Amino acid sequence: MTDDPFAEPADTREQILAATYRTLCDRGYADLTISAIGEEFEKSPSLVYRHYDSKDDLVLECLQHMLDRFDRQLTDADLTDPQERLAEVVALDEDDGPPERQQFFSALVELRSRAVHDEAYREHFTRSDEQFVSHISEIVRAGIDQGVFRECDPEQVAQTLVTTLSGAMVRHATSADDDWLGDFWAGLEAYLERCVYRNEAVTDS
Amino acid sequence: MTDDPFAEPADTREQILAATYRTLCDRGYADLTISAIGEEFEKSPSLVYRHYDSKDDLVLECLQHMLDRFDRQLTDADLTDPQERLAEVVALDEDDGPPERQQFFSALVELRSRAVHDEAYREHFTRSDEQFVSHISEIVRAGIDQGVFRECDPEQVAQTLVTTLSGAMVRHATSADDDWLGDFWAGLEAYLERCVYRNEAVTDS
Repeated sequence: MTDDPFAEPADTREQILAATYRTLCDRGYADLTISAIGEEFEKSPSLVYRHYDSKDDLVLECLQHMLDRFDRQLTDADLTDPQERLAEVVALDEDDGPPERQQFFSALVELRSRAVHDEAYREHFTRSDEQFVSHISEIVRAGIDQGVFRECDPEQVAQTLVTTLSGAMVRHATSADDDWLGDFWAGLEAYLERCVYRNEAVTDS
Repeated sequence: MTDDPFAEPADTREQILAATYRTLCDRGYADLTISAIGEEFEKSPSLVYRHYDSKDDLVLECLQHMLDRFDRQLTDADLTDPQERLAEVVALDEDDGPPERQQFFSALVELRSRAVHDEAYREHFTRSDEQFVSHISEIVRAGIDQGVFRECDPEQVAQTLVTTLSGAMVRHATSADDDWLGDFWAGLEAYLERCVYRNEAVTDS
């Protein structure tokens, strides 16, 4: 995943989106207001009101900006070792990530639930799933071509991983403890070993 | 999963919970009010106000009632064929379920996102995950004991399935289409074939 996605905002628009991101991480969606984003913004809060009508406009543009950035990072990345690349893309980095990232994942869970009734959010998350699936498919295809992955269906693997990781994100943000996480990672690893990676000796049947 | 979980309410309390369930399915969480539940309720709406202080009290009791019922159904169920039982428990029945069930799953996604900030919801969903995990573990253990499942870790399989199915529920309720669903089911089946069921000839390695 990404480090701070707004580390070096290029212009006023990106500064506003950075303030939206920080406010969302700090407060969650329910307590997010344009006024709170204005306070977090380094320049005059009135600039925020001038550019955006509602907090959802801001949040959706913030999400799109992050998705574009994530997309560029994955596209630029070196695809020479498909297994390492796949492990990197699916890893939620639950131990190492900065607290803001965990907070952002929690905010994402709130935002995603808005997609139940809000078409703009539904379109965003559909697009973001599709892009994630497309990247993972590409990595799996490269692994098959290089002979390090089994002859599997790249789209099927990608859809399975994206669905599974959505579930992990939801459970992580909404559970009282992380006792399930170790077993889950081991199960995900077992899936990859048995269905995707080729370097595993299958002894039972 | 369950059919109508409130088909035959035994008393006033269950009638109120049934009205809560129907209102939640019809309106979603955001538009749920005690007044709307009162209108759906077959007796005097004032009874609802007399028993419950907030809509969250009502929703949480409704969820707990459904969880208890689901729990009893699974416990009563015949465990003679572990593979059939596992397939039944994990199936979301996306084609066959009544529309209310899909609506309820969507409401569940909204409710689960409340657990990001609300401890009572967090406790409910933690407990509900644990019960689901416990049932699946029991089925997997029975399959291993009967020699029809591989020597796998029942808890690991259960945590993986519960996480994955949480993700499927979220994607189903928040995506613009179901194009991903076929690949996902096939991927889930592949996981079960390779990591859990024993009746599969593994030819590649």
